[in-house]
Amino acid sequence: MYTKGTFKEVIAMLSQLDQNTMKERAARQAADTVWNGARLGVGTGSTVKFFIDALGERKAAGLQLGAVVTTSSRSKAQLEGLGFTVSELADVEQLDLTVDGADRVDSHLDGIKGGGGALTLEKNVAVHSAHNTWIVDESKVVDHLGGFPLPVEVLPISAKQVYNQFEDEGLLPQFRTTATGERYVTHYGNYIIDLYIDPLPAPRGLATYLDSTVGVVEHGLFLGICDTVIIAREDGTIDVKKR
Amino acid sequence: MYTKGTFKEVIAMLSQLDQNTMKERAARQAADTVWNGARLGVGTGSTVKFFIDALGERKAAGLQLGAVVTTSSRSKAQLEGLGFTVSELADVEQLDLTVDGADRVDSHLDGIKGGGGALTLEKNVAVHSAHNTWIVDESKVVDHLGGFPLPVEVLPISAKQVYNQFEDEGLLPQFRTTATGERYVTHYGNYIIDLYIDPLPAPRGLATYLDSTVGVVEHGLFLGICDTVIIAREDGTIDVKKR
Repeated sequence: MYTKGTFKEVIAMLSQLDQNTMKERAARQAADTVWNGARLGVGTGSTVKFFIDALGERKAAGLQLGAVVTTSSRSKAQLEGLGFTVSELADVEQLDLTVDGADRVDSHLDGIKGGGGALTLEKNVAVHSAHNTWIVDESKVVDHLGGFPLPVEVLPISAKQVYNQFEDEGLLPQFRTTATGERYVTHYGNYIIDLYIDPLPAPRGLATYLDSTVGVVEHGLFLGICDTVIIAREDGTIDVKKR
Repeated sequence: MYTKGTFKEVIAMLSQLDQNTMKERAARQAADTVWNGARLGVGTGSTVKFFIDALGERKAAGLQLGAVVTTSSRSKAQLEGLGFTVSELADVEQLDLTVDGADRVDSHLDGIKGGGGALTLEKNVAVHSAHNTWIVDESKVVDHLGGFPLPVEVLPISAKQVYNQFEDEGLLPQFRTTATGERYVTHYGNYIIDLYIDPLPAPRGLATYLDSTVGVVEHGLFLGICDTVIIAREDGTIDVKKR
């Protein structure tokens, strides 16, 4: 495998390895915080994949969960492969802890989520969870929210009008498209408009505006939701921030 | 038909006739306000049915509309039966005038809509219409919003949690059910929770609360949307109120 690799490619590979090691360490630290009997929400993403692996090890060592709910079919398959019974949020009164990734997180532990398009389910799971932990690598940490387009899930019936309204408001909207150029459709049959305004001015004001916009189902501003962030830093250290 | 009718039934029939005559007169008055080239939104309901009939007469007399969009399959069938081409809101940049009914309307021309379950489409059409006229009979007119359960369309994924939250907030929620007792499902695959709090305290505050509740798709508070109400009164007069 390495015979054709240039020096640069080997470095990139090693760096990737390092990043994975970092993510795995952060994920393991998150898994260590899960208590016996906890009703757990599980997100999705490369770091959460390591978290589920670590959760599987803890299960083998005797951990029993009160319930598990997840926000992606991929995480569901991985959890079930490890012997967990996965429930729907509808079947669970309340979650105790949800562990997920984030696309951006700021110094107040507010964040942007939804790069993967599952923001509506992710937010519904998050707000009905007593605690929320995000596992992220250092590249996701920002002083002020920005550096990542803000996803807004909109009803197709008025998507055009809502798009125009966002444009008028200077929010730099773009319909999300698939690799083949078609309009991206969410699990609930809606579209996603990504707002490219950067940085995001006054996220709370923007959230209120989006909440009150008819045609908006949900948006990727997760404010006041996360209480613990586990950050895997490039220097190999793990940082834990709590609200 | 009348041979078995009691006096009471005949009176009820005459009163029904009167009510229909009233509705028809109000509907005709609304139809008279539609101008040539207007891009028109059309709602649904017994009064709107008369409105569409009157619109058909005006079409026969030469009226040409810029576009017609409607919020129900019943109105769509009636409009098409009269030779109108019905578009989707998605195909129209902006509407000029929407004519619809309302379940309640107060002295500020704020209202409750959604008794029929189509509140999300109705609100999306309404907010993208420059003008909104509601045709109602006198029984729908109130000093303060109330006297009718407020419908809230919610995502099934967190409907249980949202219901519990509404209960905690004292909003007297009930899931809407069908005649056969199953949970009512909207056109968009969601549930409706009707709030039985009556009268509604501070509708603007309640609207903000509902807008910001994760899991709520839309609610039946139509505030600051309607600019003209045509009221068919029991005494046979027609009242027009404008904002």
